[in-house]
Amino acid sequence: MALRARALYDFNSENPGEISVQENEIVTLYCEQDIEGWLEGANSRGERGLFPASYVEILKNDTVSSHNNNVTSGDGFQSARYANVPTVGCDDQYKTQAQDNVTKAPTSSFTTFPGTAPQQLSYQTSQGSDDDWDDDWDDSSTVADEPGVVGGNFQDYDGNGPSTYRVSTSSMSRGGSAQQAKSSATVSRNLNRFSTFVKSGGEAFVLGEASGFVKDGDKICVVMGQYGPEWQENPYPFSCYIDDPTKQTKFKGMKSYMSYKLTPSHTQSQVNRRYKHFDWLYARLVEKFPVISVPHLPEKQATGRFEEDFISKRRKGLIWWMNHMSSHPVLARCDVFQHFLTCCSTDEKAWKQGKRKAEKDEMVGANFFLTISTPAVPLDLQDVESKIDAFKSFTKKMDDSVLQVNATINEFARKQITGFKKEYQKVGQSFRVLSQAFELDQQAYSIGLNQAIAYTGEAYDAIGDYFADQPRQDLDPITDLLALYQGHLANYPDIIHVQKGALTKVKESQKHVEEGKMEGSQADGINDRCNIISFATLAEIQHFHQTRVRDFKAQMQHYLQQQIGFFQKITGKLEEALQKYDNV
Amino acid sequence: MALRARALYDFNSENPGEISVQENEIVTLYCEQDIEGWLEGANSRGERGLFPASYVEILKNDTVSSHNNNVTSGDGFQSARYANVPTVGCDDQYKTQAQDNVTKAPTSSFTTFPGTAPQQLSYQTSQGSDDDWDDDWDDSSTVADEPGVVGGNFQDYDGNGPSTYRVSTSSMSRGGSAQQAKSSATVSRNLNRFSTFVKSGGEAFVLGEASGFVKDGDKICVVMGQYGPEWQENPYPFSCYIDDPTKQTKFKGMKSYMSYKLTPSHTQSQVNRRYKHFDWLYARLVEKFPVISVPHLPEKQATGRFEEDFISKRRKGLIWWMNHMSSHPVLARCDVFQHFLTCCSTDEKAWKQGKRKAEKDEMVGANFFLTISTPAVPLDLQDVESKIDAFKSFTKKMDDSVLQVNATINEFARKQITGFKKEYQKVGQSFRVLSQAFELDQQAYSIGLNQAIAYTGEAYDAIGDYFADQPRQDLDPITDLLALYQGHLANYPDIIHVQKGALTKVKESQKHVEEGKMEGSQADGINDRCNIISFATLAEIQHFHQTRVRDFKAQMQHYLQQQIGFFQKITGKLEEALQKYDNV
Repeated sequence: MALRARALYDFNSENPGEISVQENEIVTLYCEQDIEGWLEGANSRGERGLFPASYVEILKNDTVSSHNNNVTSGDGFQSARYANVPTVGCDDQYKTQAQDNVTKAPTSSFTTFPGTAPQQLSYQTSQGSDDDWDDDWDDSSTVADEPGVVGGNFQDYDGNGPSTYRVSTSSMSRGGSAQQAKSSATVSRNLNRFSTFVKSGGEAFVLGEASGFVKDGDKICVVMGQYGPEWQENPYPFSCYIDDPTKQTKFKGMKSYMSYKLTPSHTQSQVNRRYKHFDWLYARLVEKFPVISVPHLPEKQATGRFEEDFISKRRKGLIWWMNHMSSHPVLARCDVFQHFLTCCSTDEKAWKQGKRKAEKDEMVGANFFLTISTPAVPLDLQDVESKIDAFKSFTKKMDDSVLQVNATINEFARKQITGFKKEYQKVGQSFRVLSQAFELDQQAYSIGLNQAIAYTGEAYDAIGDYFADQPRQDLDPITDLLALYQGHLANYPDIIHVQKGALTKVKESQKHVEEGKMEGSQADGINDRCNIISFATLAEIQHFHQTRVRDFKAQMQHYLQQQIGFFQKITGKLEEALQKYDNV
Repeated sequence: MALRARALYDFNSENPGEISVQENEIVTLYCEQDIEGWLEGANSRGERGLFPASYVEILKNDTVSSHNNNVTSGDGFQSARYANVPTVGCDDQYKTQAQDNVTKAPTSSFTTFPGTAPQQLSYQTSQGSDDDWDDDWDDSSTVADEPGVVGGNFQDYDGNGPSTYRVSTSSMSRGGSAQQAKSSATVSRNLNRFSTFVKSGGEAFVLGEASGFVKDGDKICVVMGQYGPEWQENPYPFSCYIDDPTKQTKFKGMKSYMSYKLTPSHTQSQVNRRYKHFDWLYARLVEKFPVISVPHLPEKQATGRFEEDFISKRRKGLIWWMNHMSSHPVLARCDVFQHFLTCCSTDEKAWKQGKRKAEKDEMVGANFFLTISTPAVPLDLQDVESKIDAFKSFTKKMDDSVLQVNATINEFARKQITGFKKEYQKVGQSFRVLSQAFELDQQAYSIGLNQAIAYTGEAYDAIGDYFADQPRQDLDPITDLLALYQGHLANYPDIIHVQKGALTKVKESQKHVEEGKMEGSQADGINDRCNIISFATLAEIQHFHQTRVRDFKAQMQHYLQQQIGFFQKITGKLEEALQKYDNV
């Protein structure tokens, strides 16, 4: 007899692979085991797909077994849900499906800007064993293989229903298996197992499920600054120079890859890194820091990998990336980044050792919050909420405007390279034609004019070329900056989601206390832990604004300086041409 | 019995209104009387139209009467050809048709540039009685009424077959009736009665038919200068300032017209002239000077006559016109121009007196050449021919290149006014949108950047406006200059035609002398008179080159200065914007 379940609530499918069910509808299950909160089955209309396990009660020998019973359900079931090895026959199939869904999900406004892949997915694909290390997957993959989903999930901040459809099994399984046994929260878990709040470990931390030994070196301080909470400054600031990359080969030239030469200012010792090393590092950082916006790596791949433009563009992207990394008080100091920056490129053993250590880091996800120490005075909840809401509005509007600026300057660059150049060169050409006509008159008093007009024609040709060359000097750097910030803007919905989730938990616990369902001390614990998340989130937001002002100021200045230089160069050329008429 | 004629040669129609005939083809004539060398009739294919009278022999009672018998044909016929009153029933019809043809003739490359109407036609329409003077014909006509045919007749320089299809009856009739009786040339007349060589009086002069009393004040000297024959400089050089025109009304405001205030530097006395006065003056000059390029008046009319742009454009055109007039050694000094410049605007009697005197001037057309005195040493015929041919090539090439420059800068202006402006303002707009997004963050360290970016947006808006305004400063003046020179280039084919016609006559006469058909003394006379035309033509060409170099030098300098100022203005605006970031 096929396993059946009855829907407890209406569920409307919102993503490919999901099916809708109505309250009291009987669904057929293909597998009793849920996959990260989702069950597969068929509804009464014969549609097959996924629906939230918590929305149904399984009808087992006429005994109701609801998924929506976090407190009462046995630990065994919870453990199974977080089990490292998923049930065979379900998991692989669904995981693939889920990934497909992510890849195909609507990309809203971000599609045109690469380099903004969602953190979780990049992380997942980069989670490999040591054995994979020497594979050329990064060099042979193409853009089409990369997830293209970024942003587009602003509407899901409040965590209702299945929303950000992302899979990040490894971080969950690790965090989950360690913490589940200690769970004693009376506040309900989030229904949506795909929620960033859950995935990031935010929920587990708030519910007091995170535990670990925090070494002094791992401590991360949030302090009260002039403008509110901020990350304690890095006492050992450094920067990192990225040299022109070189093409390397192996297997007797059968395989080739680009090698980036990094020189951190605090070691002055150059290391060589491949893009896949950046990618691996990125995955570690995303896994480790739930409320820190890890800058997205520049476009992973494009056809013609060694083509000069692409290499130059990726290098510039990596410079921006490294610039953000090394100026971030938390990211800059973390072990895995330091390992990446300082481990000798040729000492493979040391590299692998550091790599394994980073991948076994306990202080990731939920445990990351354990490492944060905050000022003694707690934040005002309402104040935090309004600041977060304001920042949410800010990111939305900045995202829109960055999109517009990007589209505009891309078009402006295109116009300069094609249209403007053409117009000036047509003027140049017509002056040259005029001078050629005038050259038919070779009387002494005519020759000087002929030459001056010919020179003017050349000057306009040159000006046309100036226009075509200019976008590379001034507009492209803006594009690079905007790409970095689009990555950040794509990160913030998740970060806000974590903080909002924590706030919701606090409100729930307060209600439970009022209703006498929860001990005050337990609610205080939730409140304290939410306070830590709020401090961290506000510190990160503060850092974002400060680097934003710094970066945009610098970039706008650079742009205007370049533009001024450009128009001065034109003026200079025209002055040269004008002088040719002096002796006519 | 219908009048018939037999074609002596093949004639291929080249213009609307003409029909083709083949040698020996019998054509039916509608009228025995030719109209300026053309007969109307029908060919054997039933096509009706005009063909050259000289190409056929009229079959009259089986007696052949060929038009192609200049020497043997009676003076009576010649007189009839030049008769002041044309045969009723033919002339009106054909003249209208001929004029239509001119208006509709293919305009080759000149169509887009107004202000380059051929001299002969404007002249003709302006020939009015005193009674017409107060009519508002100039104010009520439109562009569509004006002849649009300019240039396009380079291929007809050598005077074979019907070519420049222009009608200028009045000058011909006056010249013709006065000179015809004295004709005693043995060199054949030009077959084509529409030839400029004939119309201008060049032929009559060369054949010794011009006569008149030349006062000392009418003497025009060609001297040998550094670069060849040139007009003797005006010993009393002057310039003329044209003030902003004012709108005048008459008939209690029912009629209105523009009044141009002219202030010649040698009188310092302002006179008011209407466009029709310019037009009348122009007609007198064209009539008087066969081998001098009278600059075309600027565009006569456009819809919205008092519209600011049009008024400004016409004024600029008149400035160029007046500039050329007053710097031309011959034109500047002639009586009719001086009358125009100095006669008091309010003294109507004095004006009419001068007007009548100018219209009765005997020293026009053929007689103009009588007023020219040349250096004693005659020019080398071959040298003249090669110089004229070189100039012919020059004008052709200059005409092509001026056309290209004009098209290019018109397009360039359009692009700046629309496209360039739009691109810069879109950039400005996107910066403003970015600053609006940033304004959502009102922290102290953010406000300065927000304002600076907003200002940058405004700066780009302003730069967009600069681009849109600029063509009026630098490109439009070039267009005005080119329009003037296109007028000259449209004049030169006729001028060259006159000179070529004279050269041909010399060669013919030399041949006749060799064959014993002409007295050496008669041929010498033709040669001497051709020499005068050659001197005048080369002087005019020299003058053209010198003013061309002067004008184009000045205009290119002006253009480059304006462009430099323009880019400096942009640079200044960008520098202002850059400064806004200093205190961010």
